Amino acid sequence: MSDPITPGRVVRVYVAREPDTLVSARVARATVLFGGFEGDKHAGWTRRADARVPWYRRGTIIRNERQVSIVSSEELARIALALGVSEVRAEWLGANLELSGVPALTLVAPRTRLVFSSGAVLTVEGENMPCRGPGRAIQQALGIRGLETRFPKAALRLRGIIATVELPGEIAEGDAVTLVV
Amino acid sequence: MSDPITPGRVVRVYVAREPDTLVSARVARATVLFGGFEGDKHAGWTRRADARVPWYRRGTIIRNERQVSIVSSEELARIALALGVSEVRAEWLGANLELSGVPALTLVAPRTRLVFSSGAVLTVEGENMPCRGPGRAIQQALGIRGLETRFPKAALRLRGIIATVELPGEIAEGDAVTLVV
Repeated sequence: MSDPITPGRVVRVYVAREPDTLVSARVARATVLFGGFEGDKHAGWTRRADARVPWYRRGTIIRNERQVSIVSSEELARIALALGVSEVRAEWLGANLELSGVPALTLVAPRTRLVFSSGAVLTVEGENMPCRGPGRAIQQALGIRGLETRFPKAALRLRGIIATVELPGEIAEGDAVTLVV
Repeated sequence: MSDPITPGRVVRVYVAREPDTLVSARVARATVLFGGFEGDKHAGWTRRADARVPWYRRGTIIRNERQVSIVSSEELARIALALGVSEVRAEWLGANLELSGVPALTLVAPRTRLVFSSGAVLTVEGENMPCRGPGRAIQQALGIRGLETRFPKAALRLRGIIATVELPGEIAEGDAVTLVV
């Protein structure tokens, strides 16, 4: 393992509890278990195959590589600029964590570890490919039409990453996060 | 997902059942479950932290990213050449699969999927960093001294990859394997 690099900070923590919306809800801290954030609907060792993995029949039980969704403040600002809107909030994208100080978060290589000062460690699985759902949530929140179809292109390489839990623990607002290759 | 590339072939399949040796045993086919190969001592959703992850206290329960070990015939031949020995067998490295037709297997990017014609799908976690254990096994098998300490350098970027199970199923000798990015 090389020296730790690029310390960042946890700006906000979220849990997605509601089955009917992708929008997540802010919490002060999350309990991180094997499989994901406690109480989050995306948590679990396995998941059902969806449109993101079209080479599997829908509903097939596969390993859950989408346990945790992470975005960066800097990239959210760039998406907002590209869409011409005042802001894009992490919860509209269903994120679990918003980080700052890691400006090119989406480009962080798979297998990089994210070590949080409250104790949990996540493993980067890779870029979270943007689909239309978050665009629809932004559109509804801001009352502006046409964002749904523009989001996927505007958010490419900016929509953050998905990660899995390597070491359970906690993650809290204000935590330092260290990227370890 | 881009088009499938680089078709290879499963030359041999192995299971590591014995607790006291890293050497694995050849089988005609393996049943692949979530967590790894059925009956293999490395299988499981979690594992205990060892010398490979020295930033954790030894024995800490972490996600098991080392479920399946895969090597390539072409890279084994290059290790043998570097060590000046007649052969390096996959089972001496404790591998679960020996592939051919994927000459730079160790360099395949994390998150690439390996789709086997018998049905199972594995996800590449990354390079399997060489340590001294396989060198000791080669040394004992061939009756040649000094290989143990030379193996880690000789096998760097050639010792294959570790992978996790995305879709359970089977993997058999002779299977076609497709790399999907």
